[in-house]
Amino acid sequence: MLEQIAPNGLLRHLITLDGLERALVEQLLARSRYYLAGADARAPRDASLHGFTVANLFFEASTRTRASFELAAKRLDAEVLNLDVNTSSRIKGESILDTIYTLEAMHIDIFVVRDASTGVPDMIAESVAPHVCVLNAGESNTSHPTQGLLDLLTIQLHKGDISGLRVAIIGDIRHSRVARSAARALELFEVGELRFVGPQEFLPDAEEFPQAARVHEIDAGLDGVDVVMALRIQKERFDEDSEIPDGEEYFRRFGLTGQRLKHARPDAIVMHPGPMNRGTEIDSDVADSAQSVIREQVTNGVAVRMAVLAQVAEYIRAWRSAQS
Amino acid sequence: MLEQIAPNGLLRHLITLDGLERALVEQLLARSRYYLAGADARAPRDASLHGFTVANLFFEASTRTRASFELAAKRLDAEVLNLDVNTSSRIKGESILDTIYTLEAMHIDIFVVRDASTGVPDMIAESVAPHVCVLNAGESNTSHPTQGLLDLLTIQLHKGDISGLRVAIIGDIRHSRVARSAARALELFEVGELRFVGPQEFLPDAEEFPQAARVHEIDAGLDGVDVVMALRIQKERFDEDSEIPDGEEYFRRFGLTGQRLKHARPDAIVMHPGPMNRGTEIDSDVADSAQSVIREQVTNGVAVRMAVLAQVAEYIRAWRSAQS
Amino acid sequence: MLEQIAPNGLLRHLITLDGLERALVEQLLARSRYYLAGADARAPRDASLHGFTVANLFFEASTRTRASFELAAKRLDAEVLNLDVNTSSRIKGESILDTIYTLEAMHIDIFVVRDASTGVPDMIAESVAPHVCVLNAGESNTSHPTQGLLDLLTIQLHKGDISGLRVAIIGDIRHSRVARSAARALELFEVGELRFVGPQEFLPDAEEFPQAARVHEIDAGLDGVDVVMALRIQKERFDEDSEIPDGEEYFRRFGLTGQRLKHARPDAIVMHPGPMNRGTEIDSDVADSAQSVIREQVTNGVAVRMAVLAQVAEYIRAWRSAQS
Repeated sequence: MLEQIAPNGLLRHLITLDGLERALVEQLLARSRYYLAGADARAPRDASLHGFTVANLFFEASTRTRASFELAAKRLDAEVLNLDVNTSSRIKGESILDTIYTLEAMHIDIFVVRDASTGVPDMIAESVAPHVCVLNAGESNTSHPTQGLLDLLTIQLHKGDISGLRVAIIGDIRHSRVARSAARALELFEVGELRFVGPQEFLPDAEEFPQAARVHEIDAGLDGVDVVMALRIQKERFDEDSEIPDGEEYFRRFGLTGQRLKHARPDAIVMHPGPMNRGTEIDSDVADSAQSVIREQVTNGVAVRMAVLAQVAEYIRAWRSAQS
Repeated sequence: MLEQIAPNGLLRHLITLDGLERALVEQLLARSRYYLAGADARAPRDASLHGFTVANLFFEASTRTRASFELAAKRLDAEVLNLDVNTSSRIKGESILDTIYTLEAMHIDIFVVRDASTGVPDMIAESVAPHVCVLNAGESNTSHPTQGLLDLLTIQLHKGDISGLRVAIIGDIRHSRVARSAARALELFEVGELRFVGPQEFLPDAEEFPQAARVHEIDAGLDGVDVVMALRIQKERFDEDSEIPDGEEYFRRFGLTGQRLKHARPDAIVMHPGPMNRGTEIDSDVADSAQSVIREQVTNGVAVRMAVLAQVAEYIRAWRSAQS
Repeated sequence: MLEQIAPNGLLRHLITLDGLERALVEQLLARSRYYLAGADARAPRDASLHGFTVANLFFEASTRTRASFELAAKRLDAEVLNLDVNTSSRIKGESILDTIYTLEAMHIDIFVVRDASTGVPDMIAESVAPHVCVLNAGESNTSHPTQGLLDLLTIQLHKGDISGLRVAIIGDIRHSRVARSAARALELFEVGELRFVGPQEFLPDAEEFPQAARVHEIDAGLDGVDVVMALRIQKERFDEDSEIPDGEEYFRRFGLTGQRLKHARPDAIVMHPGPMNRGTEIDSDVADSAQSVIREQVTNGVAVRMAVLAQVAEYIRAWRSAQS
């Protein structure tokens, strides 16, 4: 299994939240808070990555996550190389590792990788030279660690200590890297109660998250929770499996409406990783309500990515110092 | 209707030239002249946008306008995020406003927006937070204000005072945002005479520009003018409407040739917004003649965009100061 | 014929290695060595292109060469404008020279051009203003001068003086700009022996490289050589011409295996321009062996491009000084 922590104790790769120590995550969250802007809406920045090169290597299309990592890197004064490589050209051409070795030979310091297949970020991290770091920007339905961290940060900023909280995640958890990383992050911080809410087909196998409650009915799922996280519905799944209700029917049964939200605590916050299908998994009024922290999640996402980039840059600096 | 000027009197958005005061436009032109290069062909630059982030959000493909805005922003030391979002993915995914809110949450300060539908830049400007500015980089056939400004600047640099000039715009004015913005700019500066020249199907409704003369015959249209502006012919229109002559026939009837240009004043300048269809709307020799200022338009375009960016950055700075 | 050297003796364009003086190439190689990183894997950088704008104008798709030029320019502190213009849109729209004139009017200082047609970089270099430089980033099967330089640099770093060396180039030399530029570079440095190895259909006409030996059998081709350069097989050629063996058959007859490499000198280096088809033109073990310098070629490529960019920037500076 990949070692994300270097022998000197510093974070080198961020592929998964599994197995990370809570102290390290706390450190990342503290650094993220440092990278949140002040009241004048000015983007925070410093020169932590001056002289470093970050390659955004997206084998799966993305606008928002790519933009978030790109802005994070540029605001730390890195050079950024954007490479949108679709899977078909990857199959036709050289192997993915040869692409990595080629870019590494151009002095890429940090790879930000998104891929539709489980294991690709891990494989890359296992293969790069000792002064190179790899960050997972979304991996199949397996892992999306910076999303997990930004969700944790968002909850912490609103609710403080996680351990007393009840959190409901609603939707297609089974196929969601967002849900997996959020759940891992919440478990690490000993969340009071974690509920997975959705139709049977959308819930992961019970053994994957033994501590999570599994609820098929949304009102019961929302009862008394402090945090509601609605997931994006991948509409393309509706066709594949007749067991799953289509858009309108889904909204009727599982859509997060103001009426249903009343089952949660009055000060519950509403989260969504975006992009939203308004009227499918979430009602438009709820998305724009005072309880919604959806846009804050986006802001926190840039801060988390700046923190992670700055953290692994410390590893690289330490490696360089050790060479001289 | 959208207010482009902030309560403190500063320009905040630039969506249309309609309703702008002449003094403000004069100020933008003066600033544009400041951003024109000296004799050594060196690109002008300063740090007016240091610490700002500009997002080029192009829902309609563009190479030259995107490049012009990108270079303008970079030469003012901004961070630039390029987002080419085609309309189909916009329809499938989240709403355009959710895309905007997401990017705004990443601390985008200025949105540069191009869209094929009338009203989209306006809608975005109405929706963003008070410290965010929106610039229209081309909107359907409605508005292209920086193009209007660069045309005005180009004429002014060659001819000085606009009020004594006769200007002919030739081609598909009806479907041209370039022509609309140029006409508005010229009217604001009380152009002596404005002529729309083209087949009936290519002229806008008379009530839209009551002051403009409408001429169906090119030699008469060019008679004695100081400025000739040829428009790009959208060749795809030829198929849709049998009333409109095709490429060769169009050139025979309305193409700007050296012979026809003799009807204009001997010192008349020739303009074209680009990209040109040589041999359709303009003869190649005319495009490359001493009277052509087509390449100067491009240079002036970067300067105008730098001026507009620097101007709205002043609004943002004032907003920030007012917060603290 | 295009003059690549300006009247003041400085390199202005780099379109081909043909006709360059050896002293100039030595100067470029010395500068490239300066841009190679130290032992701490840090990317070298300086401000040689501060205030300059480089446009990467790729009419033919490329990931690695575009990335190499982009990083080279950014690490010299240039502004970089990436323009991926596919050939179809080029045909539909304005002429290629009008695209160039438009970009030139935006104060592009250096064009980096890749095109599938012979003559395009040359035509552009003939057409630009006197303060603008053009670099060829790959032209049909004709020329790829920075690749030739990086190959020369790589050999020199490992073997020192070129004149005593025996070099074998294996594969589809006839259709390879890489092979042509490498051969020109090696001839300029009076390589001891140059062998073209491949099936008859893959070898260029004898009169093009009269000094090169032509060998149809790989073991004989490798006998006693100091340098082995395997070329990428364009698999799409297999279908067109039944004379050429397909992938597996090609590997059986011409694939570079460890067994065959034993015919070369024991300290022979193995080169490949990338991207590799492992198992077609080269065995995976050979690509990763201690004799392989394939990744060093990539690193040297960035250094060579930095050197060439910095060199033509000197021409531009001299031109500017002469204006004032």
